[in-house]
Amino acid sequence: MKKIALVPGDGIGPEVISSALRVLNAAGFDGELVEFDIGYGRWRRDGKAITDDDIERMKDCDCILFGAITTPPDPGYRSVLIRIRKELDLYANIRPLRSSRIDVIIVRENTEGLYSGLEMLGDEEARTVRVITRKGSQRIAEVACRIASERKHLTIIHKANVLKSDVLFLKTCREVAERYGIRYDDMLVDAAAYNMVIRPEMFDVMVTTNLFGDILSDEGAGIVGSLGLCASANLGDRWALFEPIHGSAPDIAGNGIANPVGAIRSAAMMLEWFGEMERAQSIHQAVDRTLSKGVKTPDLGGLCTTSEFTDAVIDEMRRA
Amino acid sequence: MKKIALVPGDGIGPEVISSALRVLNAAGFDGELVEFDIGYGRWRRDGKAITDDDIERMKDCDCILFGAITTPPDPGYRSVLIRIRKELDLYANIRPLRSSRIDVIIVRENTEGLYSGLEMLGDEEARTVRVITRKGSQRIAEVACRIASERKHLTIIHKANVLKSDVLFLKTCREVAERYGIRYDDMLVDAAAYNMVIRPEMFDVMVTTNLFGDILSDEGAGIVGSLGLCASANLGDRWALFEPIHGSAPDIAGNGIANPVGAIRSAAMMLEWFGEMERAQSIHQAVDRTLSKGVKTPDLGGLCTTSEFTDAVIDEMRRA
Ligand SMILES: CC(C)[C@H](C(=O)O)[C@@H](O)C(=O)O
Ligand SMILES: CC(C)[C@H](C(=O)O)[C@@H](O)C(=O)O
Repeated sequence: MKKIALVPGDGIGPEVISSALRVLNAAGFDGELVEFDIGYGRWRRDGKAITDDDIERMKDCDCILFGAITTPPDPGYRSVLIRIRKELDLYANIRPLRSSRIDVIIVRENTEGLYSGLEMLGDEEARTVRVITRKGSQRIAEVACRIASERKHLTIIHKANVLKSDVLFLKTCREVAERYGIRYDDMLVDAAAYNMVIRPEMFDVMVTTNLFGDILSDEGAGIVGSLGLCASANLGDRWALFEPIHGSAPDIAGNGIANPVGAIRSAAMMLEWFGEMERAQSIHQAVDRTLSKGVKTPDLGGLCTTSEFTDAVIDEMRRA
Repeated sequence: MKKIALVPGDGIGPEVISSALRVLNAAGFDGELVEFDIGYGRWRRDGKAITDDDIERMKDCDCILFGAITTPPDPGYRSVLIRIRKELDLYANIRPLRSSRIDVIIVRENTEGLYSGLEMLGDEEARTVRVITRKGSQRIAEVACRIASERKHLTIIHKANVLKSDVLFLKTCREVAERYGIRYDDMLVDAAAYNMVIRPEMFDVMVTTNLFGDILSDEGAGIVGSLGLCASANLGDRWALFEPIHGSAPDIAGNGIANPVGAIRSAAMMLEWFGEMERAQSIHQAVDRTLSKGVKTPDLGGLCTTSEFTDAVIDEMRRA
């Protein structure tokens, strides 16, 4: 039996995680759940967002199902999500963006770049070091190439005309793409931000560095139509973390109107990672059918609550 | 008489600059033009994209009217545009984005951030240093606040929840906004990339660091509908440079079909900077009327050539 670290987190996190669990259950998935009380809420209560012991207990699980955790712009706060990504070496952040307008998978490097944590902070000047390594670029390029070899082509996104650190990223990605024998090209990040709006159909699989992936995947979620629809997998060689790409959305938390699709599809991505392809499919298809019937939460212009939407998905699964 | 450094540059640069000059002429503007042969084309011819002497001669002019220069991702090539921005200390990059869907001015810091030029490059690891200074943040915030005080409100765009260097940027911008007594808020760059697609009307004036401004302004040009429509001013305390925000577009260069609106409006922004408000207005209005009559270049789905479009604008000016 799989052991899953469950992190409801802050804001709407617990609301969408509860939907995801109901759907997993309806799919007949049975796993051991280990719940973690970590995040900003806990930080405000006892000054610790996450402890070393939490990390150790997570490493004892197969993977993590993650709701959302608030990361305030507080100089004294270190993001829990970033810490988990680094300590479990979840180097590949896979963000599928799918709708009638766009069908793209963003493969975001998840451990280095501007998230290096190397900073020199003063009152007059503050510096953050963007770190690109050949090893880090190689392994993310390999993940992207494996995905692209089952799809159409790969676009390497960079800013190598200004950031010479991206010359290394670009060169390494090209070498890996050559080795895999896939179709690929490359594009500047600003041009990519433009083209995602103008002609998203030109992209298929995109591989990029950490912060560019952060920005472009949120932009892509805008093209999809709502952040609430988008799921992601953070993969390492040993562990994995699955999370909707939306945040804790404090403005709507507690109202029971959050869109659970991102969390539900993240749970389905978890099943895929376990090799349970049929169960994962049944969830994705039930979500597709529910949405195409016009059953929608308010972010999509609908009137459903989170639990009504979840009921509808489960109904679809039973009917299939 | 004003002395203008004219930089046609590479690709479609000369084509759109020639349109801008015709329109300036039709507006009755009379200035001394000093043409510069600089850019990637020249680099390939004689190994020098721009010389120290060119920079000195530019400093002898009032401002620069700039077409486009190719910046290849070649480790041995240094961007001409970035060099000019730095040497003339053109710290404020003003990018108005206007259409029926969006009406935003992006104020982009133009001299530091990830464009610091501080890099440590190796085969296994390469680093770029993102530099934020209090002074640099203060002066860009002041420009943004002056603009916002004539409009509705200011949004400070940052990634202070991860990049602690942005804590300094955010704090400094807030202080300046308080001092100016304007309405302001702030937003994470990923959320801004999302919201620009979903609800661009929530933004009015945005102030941000160098590379975020680069990415968001291209995204915004996508919302406007074409990069070819967008103009910009790079302002310092002494000099200024005006340029369309599109690049050299080698794919369509030489075909006579480039959209000259970005370059024409950049010339109008130059007139505004000279205090020639009426002439600037007459140009903007003629462009608006031309577009609203459906006269359009291919990037907008039209069939006009660059010179036909320019003729139409000049006709509108004569008629007014
Ligand atoms: C919450 C934040 C630290 C995180 C990030 O910047 O990676 C989020 O925006 C994301 O995309 O997962
Ligand atoms: C050409 C390039 C160096 C430049 C930049 O990155 O600033 C361009 O993209 C821009 O936005 O003006």
